[in-house]
Amino acid sequence: MRSTQRYDEAVAGVGVGHTAELGLDAPLTLDCGVDLGPFAVAYQTYGELNEDRSNLILVCHALTGDQFVTGANPITGKEGWWPFMVGPGLPFDTDRYFVVCANVLGGCMGTEGPKSVNPRTGKPYGLSFPVITIKDMVRAQAMLLDRLGIEKIFCVCGGSMGGMQALQWAVTYPERVHAAIPIGSAAHHTAQNIALHEVGRQAIMGDADWRDGDYVSHGAIPRTGLSVARMAAHISYLSEAAMHRKFGRQLQDRNSVSYGFGADFQVESYLRHQGTVFVERFDANSYLYLTRAMDYFDLVKEYDGVLADAFEGCPTRFCLISFTGDWLFPTPESRKIVHALNAAAANVSFVEIDSDKGHDAFLLDEPEMFETIRGFLMGAAEHWSGGTP
Amino acid sequence: MRSTQRYDEAVAGVGVGHTAELGLDAPLTLDCGVDLGPFAVAYQTYGELNEDRSNLILVCHALTGDQFVTGANPITGKEGWWPFMVGPGLPFDTDRYFVVCANVLGGCMGTEGPKSVNPRTGKPYGLSFPVITIKDMVRAQAMLLDRLGIEKIFCVCGGSMGGMQALQWAVTYPERVHAAIPIGSAAHHTAQNIALHEVGRQAIMGDADWRDGDYVSHGAIPRTGLSVARMAAHISYLSEAAMHRKFGRQLQDRNSVSYGFGADFQVESYLRHQGTVFVERFDANSYLYLTRAMDYFDLVKEYDGVLADAFEGCPTRFCLISFTGDWLFPTPESRKIVHALNAAAANVSFVEIDSDKGHDAFLLDEPEMFETIRGFLMGAAEHWSGGTP
Repeated sequence: MRSTQRYDEAVAGVGVGHTAELGLDAPLTLDCGVDLGPFAVAYQTYGELNEDRSNLILVCHALTGDQFVTGANPITGKEGWWPFMVGPGLPFDTDRYFVVCANVLGGCMGTEGPKSVNPRTGKPYGLSFPVITIKDMVRAQAMLLDRLGIEKIFCVCGGSMGGMQALQWAVTYPERVHAAIPIGSAAHHTAQNIALHEVGRQAIMGDADWRDGDYVSHGAIPRTGLSVARMAAHISYLSEAAMHRKFGRQLQDRNSVSYGFGADFQVESYLRHQGTVFVERFDANSYLYLTRAMDYFDLVKEYDGVLADAFEGCPTRFCLISFTGDWLFPTPESRKIVHALNAAAANVSFVEIDSDKGHDAFLLDEPEMFETIRGFLMGAAEHWSGGTP
Repeated sequence: MRSTQRYDEAVAGVGVGHTAELGLDAPLTLDCGVDLGPFAVAYQTYGELNEDRSNLILVCHALTGDQFVTGANPITGKEGWWPFMVGPGLPFDTDRYFVVCANVLGGCMGTEGPKSVNPRTGKPYGLSFPVITIKDMVRAQAMLLDRLGIEKIFCVCGGSMGGMQALQWAVTYPERVHAAIPIGSAAHHTAQNIALHEVGRQAIMGDADWRDGDYVSHGAIPRTGLSVARMAAHISYLSEAAMHRKFGRQLQDRNSVSYGFGADFQVESYLRHQGTVFVERFDANSYLYLTRAMDYFDLVKEYDGVLADAFEGCPTRFCLISFTGDWLFPTPESRKIVHALNAAAANVSFVEIDSDKGHDAFLLDEPEMFETIRGFLMGAAEHWSGGTP
């Protein structure tokens, strides 16, 4: 299969789970106006689809996540990113639900993105890959579900950029989404969010090895830029309190400062490590594209400044979750969405969870989040006419 | 004069105000153990020293500040960084006080730093310049005051890194400091502070043009790295609210997004501009040295975990100021110092000013800050036995 082969070239033969080649009959018309197709979407599934195809939970991953939600990630060799959430007996109980997660459009884990080979040129797209949006990601996922023969989603859920997708799903395909759980998310990126992303992009694009986005052809990788981007982003994922608890001012393998520019402090060593391992698993151009998609996300503007209009007549049941210690997607951003949903007379519940772990809390073992989701799914199942989830 | 000549080479003949060559008789023994001397300290003065030399206000500048507190900065051509604070009739009234500000050790505006020419090699120090600390900066300032024949400081004041110096002055030379005003400061850098600085340093040191710190000899400048460092830091100087008010999601000279990686948003354009102009005025190695000095600053550790011991018997009158919207040096950090001063039975007042402008608030037109300082100086003058300030 062409798409698989193309991706295999990119990841040196490591399997990426399932891959669907989409847009064969008709291309996907992106928000930027470009027709994309055919294109690959890599995805992973957990649990079994039931007979009436009514038990789908679609998980949408965050900026640097991927389709490997739980179990071993064959690319990194590490555990998936949401092991507490998905599995037998867990909130997304794979004994009951069919859980699907697809690598987003523009990503670098098997779905079409700037690292993919452009069939028209035989070379990686690089910056010739069209700029995509959150809505484009969702459209591609809808095409995947069409391919899988699943019309209705019992529940779509994601944190951060995944939460943006969950919101966009309910807005773009309200009739297909029974329930949605956007976690630590927002209806649009704030100036500070955009600024933080722009620092990362400038670090990447300013790296001499970026080579105008064509580094793959040159056998180069903008390691420094991508690493710095990750380091800056990582700070924004943690709260000040979490960093203090984890590292404080503790020194790294030394009793006193070195009077130099090595990693004297544990927090420096940790950040450098985060940067280094990220470069091994993530594509620099994908980082540009996905941060851009987040920056562009703006449901408020799309509905002429009235967010409630985005949810007019939307039958989806919503559960929004935020964390007190999240300064990247703080509670007021979730509250704006809740107010809009209330104004649109939509069905919505909202939980702000007390946690000082920062934005990353949604990825962690947060019992209150799990309980909230279990309860919400139970209620959603009671109101589900699509079948037995 | 050697130091002036050396600095003139560095800044292409632009005047830097006064320059003192210090450490001629005896070197300055730095915390790292290196003996530095002779070395240049560039400084600027405002107002007149009175007859009994009792009217000195020593201003300590922040990370990227310099000695040009007010009036035109001859290097940048722009206005000084604290025009609201220093001048006739202003809080630091130059009709009454003699205001001195020296470029810090390790800086790049005329005081000895990594950009200076090492007389032993005839080349810029680069990374062979010894790593300095906040205490080293203060020691060099003390040597400058000795040279100027001023024994006692009526008041020492600074924000951010300047506040660290003000604290260090009172701790190291308590008998020389009648009053101290540390603004938006801390007794030590937090893990998040260190992390943010480390991102900037990694951006600089990862820039191919940094050349192991020897870029001057190679006729290069690590522009990208320094610019990215500045952009990341700049975000931390503003509050989310200030960024939202200033930029929101407004586009830059366009009606719709470009589906590209240009500066679509005003906040991106602004940050890029901040990065670009910073590269023109600041030395990349100085940025490494000064951020390191801030990271190393730790009055708590220096006094074995009991900050109050730092102020034992200290006769200095303190006024601490913090801002509600400052997330880089938040109020709790100032409060820790206030508690320690109280525990040491020192004379201290503390004002938290309601401002959502972020860390940079101390540089802005903040009437409550000015009133606080006016009132504090009036009280300090009443208790000043050093003469008529």
